[in-house]
Amino acid sequence: MRKEIQILQKLMKEQQVDFYYVPSEDDHNSEYVAPHFQCRAFLSGFTGSAGTLLVTQKEAFLWTDGRYFLQAQEQLKDSGITLMRMGCKGVPTIEQWLLENGWENMVLGYDGRTMNARREKQLLQQISSRYPVSERIHLDFVGTVWEQEETRPQLDFHPVVEWPLCYAGESGESKCERLRSYLKEKKVTAYVVTELSEIAWLLNLRGTDVECSPVFLSYLLVTPEELRLYASLSAFPEELAENLKNIGVRLYDYHSFYEDLHNYEGRLWADAATVNAWVYHKVVKSGGESVPSPIPLWKAVKNETEIDGERQAHIRDGVAMVNFLYWLKHRETDSSGCLLDEEGKAVTEISAAQHLEEERMRQENYMGPSFAPIVAVGEHGAIVHYSATKESNAELTENTFVLMDTGGQYLEGTTDVTRTVVLGKVTPRMKELYTAVLAGNLELMNALFAKGARGENLDILARTPLWRKGYDYNHGTGHGVGCYLNVHEGPVSIRSHIYDDGRNSAVFAPGMITSDEPGVYVSGEFGIRLENMLVCVEREKTDYQEFLGFEPLTMVPWDRDAILPEQMSEEQKVLLNSYQQLVYNNLVPFLEPSVGDWLFEVTRPIH
Amino acid sequence: MRKEIQILQKLMKEQQVDFYYVPSEDDHNSEYVAPHFQCRAFLSGFTGSAGTLLVTQKEAFLWTDGRYFLQAQEQLKDSGITLMRMGCKGVPTIEQWLLENGWENMVLGYDGRTMNARREKQLLQQISSRYPVSERIHLDFVGTVWEQEETRPQLDFHPVVEWPLCYAGESGESKCERLRSYLKEKKVTAYVVTELSEIAWLLNLRGTDVECSPVFLSYLLVTPEELRLYASLSAFPEELAENLKNIGVRLYDYHSFYEDLHNYEGRLWADAATVNAWVYHKVVKSGGESVPSPIPLWKAVKNETEIDGERQAHIRDGVAMVNFLYWLKHRETDSSGCLLDEEGKAVTEISAAQHLEEERMRQENYMGPSFAPIVAVGEHGAIVHYSATKESNAELTENTFVLMDTGGQYLEGTTDVTRTVVLGKVTPRMKELYTAVLAGNLELMNALFAKGARGENLDILARTPLWRKGYDYNHGTGHGVGCYLNVHEGPVSIRSHIYDDGRNSAVFAPGMITSDEPGVYVSGEFGIRLENMLVCVEREKTDYQEFLGFEPLTMVPWDRDAILPEQMSEEQKVLLNSYQQLVYNNLVPFLEPSVGDWLFEVTRPIH
Repeated sequence: MRKEIQILQKLMKEQQVDFYYVPSEDDHNSEYVAPHFQCRAFLSGFTGSAGTLLVTQKEAFLWTDGRYFLQAQEQLKDSGITLMRMGCKGVPTIEQWLLENGWENMVLGYDGRTMNARREKQLLQQISSRYPVSERIHLDFVGTVWEQEETRPQLDFHPVVEWPLCYAGESGESKCERLRSYLKEKKVTAYVVTELSEIAWLLNLRGTDVECSPVFLSYLLVTPEELRLYASLSAFPEELAENLKNIGVRLYDYHSFYEDLHNYEGRLWADAATVNAWVYHKVVKSGGESVPSPIPLWKAVKNETEIDGERQAHIRDGVAMVNFLYWLKHRETDSSGCLLDEEGKAVTEISAAQHLEEERMRQENYMGPSFAPIVAVGEHGAIVHYSATKESNAELTENTFVLMDTGGQYLEGTTDVTRTVVLGKVTPRMKELYTAVLAGNLELMNALFAKGARGENLDILARTPLWRKGYDYNHGTGHGVGCYLNVHEGPVSIRSHIYDDGRNSAVFAPGMITSDEPGVYVSGEFGIRLENMLVCVEREKTDYQEFLGFEPLTMVPWDRDAILPEQMSEEQKVLLNSYQQLVYNNLVPFLEPSVGDWLFEVTRPIH
Repeated sequence: MRKEIQILQKLMKEQQVDFYYVPSEDDHNSEYVAPHFQCRAFLSGFTGSAGTLLVTQKEAFLWTDGRYFLQAQEQLKDSGITLMRMGCKGVPTIEQWLLENGWENMVLGYDGRTMNARREKQLLQQISSRYPVSERIHLDFVGTVWEQEETRPQLDFHPVVEWPLCYAGESGESKCERLRSYLKEKKVTAYVVTELSEIAWLLNLRGTDVECSPVFLSYLLVTPEELRLYASLSAFPEELAENLKNIGVRLYDYHSFYEDLHNYEGRLWADAATVNAWVYHKVVKSGGESVPSPIPLWKAVKNETEIDGERQAHIRDGVAMVNFLYWLKHRETDSSGCLLDEEGKAVTEISAAQHLEEERMRQENYMGPSFAPIVAVGEHGAIVHYSATKESNAELTENTFVLMDTGGQYLEGTTDVTRTVVLGKVTPRMKELYTAVLAGNLELMNALFAKGARGENLDILARTPLWRKGYDYNHGTGHGVGCYLNVHEGPVSIRSHIYDDGRNSAVFAPGMITSDEPGVYVSGEFGIRLENMLVCVEREKTDYQEFLGFEPLTMVPWDRDAILPEQMSEEQKVLLNSYQQLVYNNLVPFLEPSVGDWLFEVTRPIH
């Protein structure tokens, strides 16, 4: 058994803990987690973004989903940890496994700070449906092991800056007032917010404490007197601290949050869907209960300034993408069809991603990638969350597709774009599938729908062209995107089934931004995903209904080398041609003449 | 104040009840309620199918929805009861009203037998969120008042018959075994079933105790020893009782159910979504809890025999409809354009419905209507649940639409069909809207979708053609239909949002039968609704997905006088023409030559 697990198991025996549960989250329910918080990766050696480790006194099990089966298998080799392939036949869920292998009054331990409160409730409810379980939630065993090993990364605090009103469109003061009056209406006197993107949005502040997400480590405790912002005191310039004070926000040390909360004497409320179990236990103990945070919905509905900013960011992102695509499409090849860079070296997945990053870095107000880039050539494209490693890094070679899913953080907004591009020539079947995915993308972009619609109503539009050919994709069609914030955000998404958990079941509203990303993945051969970002807009209002629709934000051409016009309806061709025209018109002022000429050629109407 | 309410209020004062709540349901959670159970109608005088009466010691309020505003206004005139128009601006829900007008420890009374258990829970939860409420659930005040008045209709028990295996396709014995093993798996020893259609389905029995629905009044109590069927003992012929005994079903008197249940000593379980509060309180008291009934889903998935039966029933129903349409389209008119029957009398909404009923009665195995027929001419068509009364009964006059939503119970299956038919000539706008509704109907029928889809994923297909013209309809697109059972049944439906209540959120499965009924309603002018019944069928199975689709069951032509071919896509025209052809081929063997010739003409392909 892996050494780290052995030390943990020793602790478990000493303290009579039968099962120890290690989720992937940090204390803030983040998707992207700072190294300091990567406990599951530290213990197991598995570094994928999603996975849960369950350790018994003798064994250890890691649950992860299909995206990570190969990676986990590799990384868990010789670790002594059993890989549990989620969703595969005969593989129980953690709850089922605990029901089968547990016993009455078994002791389940975990660190309540890294366990989402709602997740804790589900887990315990399911287990205790069979027999009582003693949970011990204040066990930071991983911290103990990690500190013994002296390898735990320090929490890394970086300067916090104000996100100016010219980008935000609404002052932090106004947002805080909205929160205050919401809480007043709910008769809530003290409220805890722990999600980093909620705090960043509310206060118009941004940081760089977490990779790819411009947030800063913090907690917020709204009391009758003040908004207590727990963060790194040294991360705030004096003037910024002063400005915050003027709108009723006082700074406290990040590290004093749990103690202060523990000692807080009044009633407390929080959103059980986002806060961790530690916080929520305190809320319940104080006599409070779960009150949904209104911030995710407010944050999802972008104001006019933000939408304008997103448009500008997407034009710059489009310029970078088109410069990159021009470069990619004009590569020489060697005798084996491998693309060569200016220095005659083979273009690889990693070097292509670097080149694209350099193009983005040339753009004004570019702050960095919004997520780890995916550049996947040939069969790698069929692995949905492929990310090239040194070992897997493939050369870009002709006569296949390269799938590129990348995005940027700009001061004005966040981008997320996927283009699948023909290298050399591809087969008619590959073109047929590209055309079907494209048709789905266009049909969703062209949706017209009644107010009140959710993503589950629209999902079929993107899938139907593929379904008609017998294909499908095993992921959602669209996710919410923040404005110079997280590239994935609630509470809207476009997928076939959205659980009514009160958090991800919001209806579409003008100003919401989502992705539109159908795909198809032919295992061992190639993958196609075509992704634009869309903003929801008002359309016609009649005596019968108010209608909404979408406008594309992403400004990057589709690859005409991959399109079979005869496989598209007349309406789809009109949609395609007008999108290509829009891209050309928006980008040409910012392109070198040679690139502009090329863009003109590749965006010519298709008949 | 209406006399009945005055007597009730006297009782309330005597027994210190502050609010008395009267729902529309019977003890069995039925949609169609026998006269004996129509308490709300008795008390208020309002006879619509949906409405809730709330009586205080001084006042009375009736909540009903938009379908019934006009009728309720009329029927409540001079009653002293205030009409609460549900969904209108400023009109509180009953819960909101009680929160605003109630007080701490107010006493809320109702008859727990007519209150659905889940509804009770919601109601009490919402009120007690503000202040505690004492509920008194065993108050049959209405019964007391009604019996004083000596006008209460007796419970009317009719003979029960076996639904033969040649129609049912699965024996009652087999179904009971399925139930037994489901309960065993859930560790349930005793289970209560109270929905009439569930009991009828399970035991392959049918009756005529309730209008339009071939069920019989009964309760079922599954004990470790036997299935206790509480019903009218005299309604069962000796042989039938013997057959039931052989599969472990023993007959008990309907009237002894509540007493027997009260005295039952073991633990009991039931489905809180269907049983009444009286039953559910006993379940909880016994130490049991809610366990979903598996019967609705089993019942919804029709077996091959049932599907064949439905096809036959629909051919006969189509013959009746086509004979009727032929008659309707060949009426002479008088000088004012009014259609005349053979005797020269004006054809009215009621007489047309009667004529159609006579055509159905000529068909083999026709058992009666599956719901009260809707024949609505001109502006009446815009009232979604219009039902002609003596007072409203309009003459069928040329140059408008007549909307006819009717259905039949046949021994082999249940039908539900809506056709909107041109009388004389209609305007281009009317044709345009007819064509848009038809396009929506055809697009849904033509759906191809992945296994796992729910109605909320498909709803947009039927609505898009209307949405593109700025129109919409304010009702669901489709509902489940029973097989020689209720015309409305769960747990599938096609609508824009389906609540995950674990009951109506089933995914589509081959064998499920639903309606497909988009419409458009132009207030004061006309209404269009076009409804077919569809059966869900397996389509292609690929490496990527298993696909499902629909086949039409209804065999009645669309009205070519109302179609604008230039408003349809080529694909929609292909769908239209092949449906019309299918109707012709299926029906022509059973038609008189003159009717067959006419059907040939009206189903000719449209280009």
